[in-house]
Amino acid sequence: MRTQVGIIGAGPAGLMLALLLRREGIDAVVLESRSRAYVEQRVRAGLLEQWARDLLVEIGAGDRLQREGMVHDGIRLSCLGRLHAIDFRALVGRTVTIYDQKEVVKDLIALLIERGGEVLFEAEATAVDGITRDAPAIRFRHGGAETTLDCDIVAGCDGFHGIARPAIPDGVLTVYERGYPFGWLGILSESPPPSDELIYAYHERGFALFSMRAPTVSRLYLQCAPDEDVERWSDARIFDELETRLGGSCALARGRVLQKGVTPMRSVVVEPMQHGRLFLAGDSAHIQPPTGAKGMNLAFADVVYLSRALVAHYRQGRSDGLDAYSRTCLDRVWKAQRFSWFMTQLLHRFPDETAFDRRRQLADITYLAGSTAAATALAENYSGLPLA
Amino acid sequence: MRTQVGIIGAGPAGLMLALLLRREGIDAVVLESRSRAYVEQRVRAGLLEQWARDLLVEIGAGDRLQREGMVHDGIRLSCLGRLHAIDFRALVGRTVTIYDQKEVVKDLIALLIERGGEVLFEAEATAVDGITRDAPAIRFRHGGAETTLDCDIVAGCDGFHGIARPAIPDGVLTVYERGYPFGWLGILSESPPPSDELIYAYHERGFALFSMRAPTVSRLYLQCAPDEDVERWSDARIFDELETRLGGSCALARGRVLQKGVTPMRSVVVEPMQHGRLFLAGDSAHIQPPTGAKGMNLAFADVVYLSRALVAHYRQGRSDGLDAYSRTCLDRVWKAQRFSWFMTQLLHRFPDETAFDRRRQLADITYLAGSTAAATALAENYSGLPLA
Repeated sequence: MRTQVGIIGAGPAGLMLALLLRREGIDAVVLESRSRAYVEQRVRAGLLEQWARDLLVEIGAGDRLQREGMVHDGIRLSCLGRLHAIDFRALVGRTVTIYDQKEVVKDLIALLIERGGEVLFEAEATAVDGITRDAPAIRFRHGGAETTLDCDIVAGCDGFHGIARPAIPDGVLTVYERGYPFGWLGILSESPPPSDELIYAYHERGFALFSMRAPTVSRLYLQCAPDEDVERWSDARIFDELETRLGGSCALARGRVLQKGVTPMRSVVVEPMQHGRLFLAGDSAHIQPPTGAKGMNLAFADVVYLSRALVAHYRQGRSDGLDAYSRTCLDRVWKAQRFSWFMTQLLHRFPDETAFDRRRQLADITYLAGSTAAATALAENYSGLPLA
Repeated sequence: MRTQVGIIGAGPAGLMLALLLRREGIDAVVLESRSRAYVEQRVRAGLLEQWARDLLVEIGAGDRLQREGMVHDGIRLSCLGRLHAIDFRALVGRTVTIYDQKEVVKDLIALLIERGGEVLFEAEATAVDGITRDAPAIRFRHGGAETTLDCDIVAGCDGFHGIARPAIPDGVLTVYERGYPFGWLGILSESPPPSDELIYAYHERGFALFSMRAPTVSRLYLQCAPDEDVERWSDARIFDELETRLGGSCALARGRVLQKGVTPMRSVVVEPMQHGRLFLAGDSAHIQPPTGAKGMNLAFADVVYLSRALVAHYRQGRSDGLDAYSRTCLDRVWKAQRFSWFMTQLLHRFPDETAFDRRRQLADITYLAGSTAAATALAENYSGLPLA
């Protein structure tokens, strides 16, 4: 089996890359170890920066997104019983859209298949060979048979636990990692969100986030211990705690809890994001804490850069784009990590914090609420910095 | 002896307060424990925010400042061998002025005496009595005699080690404090500064600051251990290290070292800044690390707020301004602490940092250098937020 670009992983990065390449007449095959049903139901967050939404529309995967996605003009910061609006549309002329990652994946799979793209489900890549020679190959198991996909370029879009990154020889990659001494206890609740915008709540007892999946379905989070035992949290206790942390800044409706779980918080970046003919994109190269809502957006940015470089490679025989791929991506990745860190340190309680640090956090929120420049900086990062 | 407002301390806060009150026909006496020569030579930093410079000019103490003060349109960030300009004038229409605090003190003393203001040098305040009754009094020693200054209001402008703050009963004040695990090794050098603007240098080996006292006199700092032994630093070693940390972003001239010393770094805020008839202003209530260059500016802001409240008190019998004094000051004080912390954490190395944190700092600097919003936020804080 042979193609130009072998893509491992049918998540947002791999699927979008296949579509971007297909539009340019470059052949690609997507190998996905899971079933189609599995990846279409895999629970992930889902916040799209303005340009990422525009990209989905432009590629032709925007119909349902435009009908069902929830456009947000900004966020609210809740602090000491008051809500402070950060209005992205007014500040930077951009919005964000809440649309589940699994819905994005469904739309991209449907579109790719409709356009005749090749995506093999339950095709488990087991090894990547020859990435430093000019003829890489992906070995995979599919329908009980061992097969090899020969290609010019391998795109590793198979997440942090995938096989692409480990195919890079020891000593090539540097891993930058930061753990956080807390997690998020999250629930999905059959109740309307407390506000039409996301609320990021700062409170003495810890951070809370009030988000939504639909007008009548809330996604609610509480800062908790990293190893929090979810069994110790009854639905009533969760809602009591959410209400406390909202601090009276607005009312909170309660509803049936549909899901409950703890999200770990960590940051990881590997450098470089390429080796020979293998290029990593999305979670296979970097993990963001959920505070900045950057995961899917960075995955899309990576493959936009990669597809541009591949077009220049195939059309004009130029390698500068491919050579610069990692550098181009990492500039954005680190800025996103910076922003996620900014939001995280602003709003969470830390075990080693002092009373001084708490006052400083309050001053930071007060300053943000009152400074157009500071609010603009938040807005431009949250709604998405321009692509390079 | 009797006056309306008894002021302890002839630093920038006490002297400016006396002048602001005198202009409004309110009597004040300034008691200073040191000699005039001593306070006029006391070495402190000296960076004036735009409004603080304007205040000095408006009060009539601006002649020499306007001739000798060095106006700066912005600062430069040095990182990985490149200089990034943050242009305050272009971003927020404001500048800052470098003018030694001791020169400000000289000008204010001369003006206060010229206007018939009462300032007693070598008058050591020993106690403040009756601040929760309506008749406070300051006991002091002057010319070998014990005297009492009866007044309506006491302004504690005598610095962090003064006697005013300890006159507030135990249990009233909360002290917020943050130490930093480093200090600044500073020199005064007979050499022109490397740039016409201040350079804040981020470097693998630690922070460095390139400032100036005059066109041919540089004030240069290196991040060092908090208990650094200055004797281990020869002039040549200091210049070698400064040059290394400048990272080739511009050339560094060397010169005779006129002074050498280690500046400790800490942040302190006490709350509230008032009790009964005693009002604290400037360093007696808060200490800033030098990174944000806020010390003298906050002292002036405090006494502007206090003088306004006193004018309303004496003219209209209103107490709301005095009642709100601490709250009004602390909003600005905490925003300044926030900014000083921002600059400090952005540019210094920390003992507990990880490689991830270093990359995040680099991304922060790259982001600042490229984002108008982020640069504007820095500029508006550095050049001085508007007075409330």
